[in-house]
Amino acid sequence: MRKFILIVFLLCQFFSFGQKPKFDLVQWVNPMIGTHKMGHTYPGATAPFGMVQLSPDTDTIPYAVNGKYNKDVYKYCAGYQYDDPTIVGFSHTHFSGTGHSDLGDFLLMPTTGKLQLNPGTETQPEKGYRSKFLHANEKAEPAYYSVLLDDHNIKAELTATNRVGMHQYTFPKSDEAHIILDLMHGIYNYEDKNVWTFFRVENDTLVTGFRQTNGWARTRTVYFAMSFSKPIESYGNKDYGKAQVYRGFWRKFDQSKNFPEMAGEQLRAYFNFKTEEGEKIKVKFALSPVSTEGALANMRTEIPHWDFDRVKQESQAQWNQELSKVRAVLPTKDDYINFYTALYHTFLGPTTYMDVTGQYRGLDQNNHQANGFTNYTTFSLWDTYRALHPWFNVVQPKRNADMINSMLAHYDQSVHHMLPVWSHHANENWCMIGYHSVSVIADAIMKGTYTGDANRALDACVATARQGYYDGLQYYMQLGYVPEDKNSSSVSKTLEYAYDDWCIAQVAKKLNRQDVYQEFSQRAQNWKNVYDKSIGYMRPKMSDGTFKKEFDVLSTHNQGFIEGNAWNYSLYVPQDPAALIQSMGGNKKFVPHLDSLFTMHLPDEFFADTEDITREGIIGNYVHGNEPAHHAAYLYNWTNQPWKTQERVRMILKKQYQSTPDGLGGNDDCGQMSAWYLFSSLGFYPVAPGSEQYALGSPAVKEATINLENGKTFTVEAKNQSDKNVFVQKVELNSKPLTQPFLNHSDLAKGGKLTFYMSSKPRK
Amino acid sequence: MRKFILIVFLLCQFFSFGQKPKFDLVQWVNPMIGTHKMGHTYPGATAPFGMVQLSPDTDTIPYAVNGKYNKDVYKYCAGYQYDDPTIVGFSHTHFSGTGHSDLGDFLLMPTTGKLQLNPGTETQPEKGYRSKFLHANEKAEPAYYSVLLDDHNIKAELTATNRVGMHQYTFPKSDEAHIILDLMHGIYNYEDKNVWTFFRVENDTLVTGFRQTNGWARTRTVYFAMSFSKPIESYGNKDYGKAQVYRGFWRKFDQSKNFPEMAGEQLRAYFNFKTEEGEKIKVKFALSPVSTEGALANMRTEIPHWDFDRVKQESQAQWNQELSKVRAVLPTKDDYINFYTALYHTFLGPTTYMDVTGQYRGLDQNNHQANGFTNYTTFSLWDTYRALHPWFNVVQPKRNADMINSMLAHYDQSVHHMLPVWSHHANENWCMIGYHSVSVIADAIMKGTYTGDANRALDACVATARQGYYDGLQYYMQLGYVPEDKNSSSVSKTLEYAYDDWCIAQVAKKLNRQDVYQEFSQRAQNWKNVYDKSIGYMRPKMSDGTFKKEFDVLSTHNQGFIEGNAWNYSLYVPQDPAALIQSMGGNKKFVPHLDSLFTMHLPDEFFADTEDITREGIIGNYVHGNEPAHHAAYLYNWTNQPWKTQERVRMILKKQYQSTPDGLGGNDDCGQMSAWYLFSSLGFYPVAPGSEQYALGSPAVKEATINLENGKTFTVEAKNQSDKNVFVQKVELNSKPLTQPFLNHSDLAKGGKLTFYMSSKPRK
Repeated sequence: MRKFILIVFLLCQFFSFGQKPKFDLVQWVNPMIGTHKMGHTYPGATAPFGMVQLSPDTDTIPYAVNGKYNKDVYKYCAGYQYDDPTIVGFSHTHFSGTGHSDLGDFLLMPTTGKLQLNPGTETQPEKGYRSKFLHANEKAEPAYYSVLLDDHNIKAELTATNRVGMHQYTFPKSDEAHIILDLMHGIYNYEDKNVWTFFRVENDTLVTGFRQTNGWARTRTVYFAMSFSKPIESYGNKDYGKAQVYRGFWRKFDQSKNFPEMAGEQLRAYFNFKTEEGEKIKVKFALSPVSTEGALANMRTEIPHWDFDRVKQESQAQWNQELSKVRAVLPTKDDYINFYTALYHTFLGPTTYMDVTGQYRGLDQNNHQANGFTNYTTFSLWDTYRALHPWFNVVQPKRNADMINSMLAHYDQSVHHMLPVWSHHANENWCMIGYHSVSVIADAIMKGTYTGDANRALDACVATARQGYYDGLQYYMQLGYVPEDKNSSSVSKTLEYAYDDWCIAQVAKKLNRQDVYQEFSQRAQNWKNVYDKSIGYMRPKMSDGTFKKEFDVLSTHNQGFIEGNAWNYSLYVPQDPAALIQSMGGNKKFVPHLDSLFTMHLPDEFFADTEDITREGIIGNYVHGNEPAHHAAYLYNWTNQPWKTQERVRMILKKQYQSTPDGLGGNDDCGQMSAWYLFSSLGFYPVAPGSEQYALGSPAVKEATINLENGKTFTVEAKNQSDKNVFVQKVELNSKPLTQPFLNHSDLAKGGKLTFYMSSKPRK
Repeated sequence: MRKFILIVFLLCQFFSFGQKPKFDLVQWVNPMIGTHKMGHTYPGATAPFGMVQLSPDTDTIPYAVNGKYNKDVYKYCAGYQYDDPTIVGFSHTHFSGTGHSDLGDFLLMPTTGKLQLNPGTETQPEKGYRSKFLHANEKAEPAYYSVLLDDHNIKAELTATNRVGMHQYTFPKSDEAHIILDLMHGIYNYEDKNVWTFFRVENDTLVTGFRQTNGWARTRTVYFAMSFSKPIESYGNKDYGKAQVYRGFWRKFDQSKNFPEMAGEQLRAYFNFKTEEGEKIKVKFALSPVSTEGALANMRTEIPHWDFDRVKQESQAQWNQELSKVRAVLPTKDDYINFYTALYHTFLGPTTYMDVTGQYRGLDQNNHQANGFTNYTTFSLWDTYRALHPWFNVVQPKRNADMINSMLAHYDQSVHHMLPVWSHHANENWCMIGYHSVSVIADAIMKGTYTGDANRALDACVATARQGYYDGLQYYMQLGYVPEDKNSSSVSKTLEYAYDDWCIAQVAKKLNRQDVYQEFSQRAQNWKNVYDKSIGYMRPKMSDGTFKKEFDVLSTHNQGFIEGNAWNYSLYVPQDPAALIQSMGGNKKFVPHLDSLFTMHLPDEFFADTEDITREGIIGNYVHGNEPAHHAAYLYNWTNQPWKTQERVRMILKKQYQSTPDGLGGNDDCGQMSAWYLFSSLGFYPVAPGSEQYALGSPAVKEATINLENGKTFTVEAKNQSDKNVFVQKVELNSKPLTQPFLNHSDLAKGGKLTFYMSSKPRK
């Protein structure tokens, strides 16, 4: 008997049901960071890399009205804006930190009183189902969000497992309690975005259905299964779409009330209850990329009970587990919040995109079985190849390998025979430029974290890089650059292709694929074709070989660059900074030039109207709030003044990351901004993913231990750390001095200790 | 070596490759019958019960324009009207003989000359891709159709296996040969019917995709895979839909030309070739209810080669096999044509609705695996329960059992917990009235042809019959009738529910389920509640128990009946004609009353504007062209003048069935009209499916042998047969006289011989 009790006790410990975690890192995460202004993060509940992102939406601004773009929609990429006074409801899918959007599927909203099926407006919330709320009554934690909905006197609590969102609504006494399911709602919605929606009331506690949209993803379907803890008293729906021509045959029923199957473009449904004071109605809401059957299986597998607190505790225990991959000692409480919130933000995606059975929807719109890997989606690769995937190679190599497997599955299903560019939910949305999947793949292969068939992966990279009809690539292959008169943003494309090509060459070399190595080493030099030595900047070249005449190195509009100017983009040769610096006149010219990036004064309106660049993310002419120059501060390491990297990095960390809702200087971009923070805080950064080299900066931690998946630990210590001591006097790896400001991944992977000796004075 | 040759020879014989069939019954089938006026049959190529119905469409009249019904569309239920001068193209799905429609998926059209992507009009075919044609250049056979497309000088030939259509286009020499794939085209189309379409050019010979519609079926998707025998030179498409809001991200490509993936609501694609004089381009076009992967597997399994003639021969051999289930000796060539075309029409559907793997889309929109049965769809049950499914119990019992298994799968997936009413392609379209699945199930169980779990089937019948919110059923269960003030067509519903309930009772009795038997025997009497003794007609009753005041026994409009009048419908108590006759005053009153049905004169315009009733199908007040009175001519058997049944039946056979394109007096209704013809020609008819009793009539055959699936044969012989000798003097079963004008199915199933002795004089 005693033995039995002991076993139960140990099991409880092991599964940490209700157990206080040894390290409560969850406490440091503030999901509100980035929800104000342009961070585009969401405050709701999600599990690490979870399929469900259950989060409040504070408004429903359409992407377009009558086919015209609605600029204000940009604020609502994640559905939530901190300064909004109302909450429309809680939807189940959100991107974290993107600069364009989609999703917002399946909004639920609990209400009391007279049934209202329209969402109402911010200024007149009482005319719809939405509700006013106060931040004082709001709480956001990893895998937990709660808020008091003032207009309905309902406390709403949310938690989530990987594929299932769980709602707990505490109602007042009411004979008119409702839960609204709005199938019209969505993020970046517009009048024709819903292609089809469908739902069935399977019984008095279970509803299933799907939503199919034509949005950023052109052909996207999400399936759901929703279960109530209490039987529905009655239910109904309203079809806000055009009268359906064939509806006649259904006329024998009143389909709007208590009729269990409905389909159409614009549907809102409601479910009525009677509640006692303080009565909790819980809802489990499961998603699937494949079928309602899949959603139901996900629900039954992941939450086979009705214990909300248990789900919350278990999901938070999972978060603690993930967050404990880095145990940091930091100077201030705010630093803890910034650090662990950044870590949290890097673990939000790419998101799981398969059922518990391994079934997922492929790019070919067929269902596939993921054999031997977890299928992920939401690859914002133009952003995340830079630091997020390299970060995963440090703290999540297994998941990163599966992300690569997911990219290769995408490749196998791609009619273009291409790896993803920007993909989500079984779609390629072609957003931004380059083919940075190859960077992610090369980085993992070069660092030894990709355990699959590297030759197969290389073949996919090569096929992608040779797809002529993709975005100027035919010209690039013919001329050695993308000509601006044939394809816009031509310099950005040329530079990024050249870097990606270098990545391919590295892998080819490692795998002894000489032909490929030759071809892509050659292509990697193509950055030189758009460098105009006469002015010292990258510059758009025309198909006749001449440089574009009218040219403004500061302007971000139609100068051959995307989301950046020539000034920033001219620094982009991550594969060979030394050659770039050489071209630009060597240390003597390059260092003051780079200095001026950070120190020059630009008028406030300068970057206005450039998507994804906002005032908050700018330091001088350096745009930290967007990606193209994320490596720039580290370029001093290739000059004779690496101490400037140390100074700049610490300055950026301070200026661009705050522990407040408006604490992010730009879109978090699916974790890229946060990954920059984490690397930089630890004192090193992957300037060129695809090499195993990190450039050293200046750590902001006092000490941090990375718990590697191979069981080893790698510790960074900053001796004599302080706000003023941003300069590095000396660095030791396992007590041996490093003579160059670089660290190899293989040394990190072996485990060990990197010791920085900090000082307030640069070591010149 | 000799042995080897012998084996090959025997194998060839066995698989009948290129082998002359022993009985060429295919020669007697004229698929053109019913293609003129209101037969609503299609002339194209299909395999028995095949998923693909590849047939020419002669016009594209929309179902509705700006939401308004377009009356002329009714002519195009099967896509083809014999008197049209042009062919728009060849689409892959068609109903046979329905009175409302859908489908017409994936129209292909070969053209030459300048590419034209719009279909053009009948009067100006040269302005579009359609072509003029002549019947002289047209040929229609089972599984084969060919026509010369005059405007393009292309001979088009079509054949089909179960799931794959095969096209063979003989082109002239042309540098501008095209094959157009019109994804906008459809039958009963309207502006918003296409919900979404999607296609990918997988390589230079393979295209895949799907079409999703909101039509008669509300949520329907058909997937395809199309393979060309010759590589495409170039290709493209045009999107006729509204500009897609998010198209911007795709702007980096010209998606209209040689771009391999396209999606939208309104797409037409084209594929360009260069052809030599007389060059044949073949196309294999496979369908799937599940996925493009499924369609491709269907194609590769069913037609793994490019031999058009072989496909045609094999499919025709299959048809010969099926048609040989009845070997008839008939008086004239026209009789052969009528008989075997009717047999052909009864074997067109229900159609196969699963991939070669057994995967199919269920009513819940999930994919399912058909374990141990073939899944069928297109259940036009209000029509087909009468004679088609009983006919299957004679000649296709195994398929009929699988149709019941398909209905039970529908039931399992139905959120209404109901068997199908009118279902097709994973949808319930709720067309017409009753729950006649129960009749089909009862008939098979009572005749011993359903081999599955009869109790499970009965449970499904009972659940269906108790679904209160279905079409007045709650009232019917409460009051014993459907009240006209609560639900229209109330008498038709009451009468048909009562018959269906009797079917349930029969099964319950057989399975010794006493409670069910009691309940439904009781309900089977409900016809009496709408019989108005004072006038001798069935009459709508109000919820207060009074009969509707204003009442016209001849009118078909708002008198409580659907697609019929009180006169015809008052004869509808198939479960108990004797009781009906008794109620109506016995033989003395009933016989002249029934006589007048056939002899009274109604003005020409009488049935005008009653859907599915056309002038051609009317004899007096008897409407043979529609179903409700199909049993009426056989009612004399329950009187003292059964010879009148004999006379009427032969008269109807002569008048309503001709061997010409306009030879059907009404919609063939998925084979119901043809099944009536076959039963009646053989001299017996199932007045009340669900009993094993057939009413005898007057055979039109000289002799016919039914090859039963149990290996036995049942022969009907009509001695002294002639056009004038329509009266039966004597009937012998296995040489023993039958004393009553009835035959039992069990006697038929045992095998044997039924001998009619014919005469020109009635035996009074």
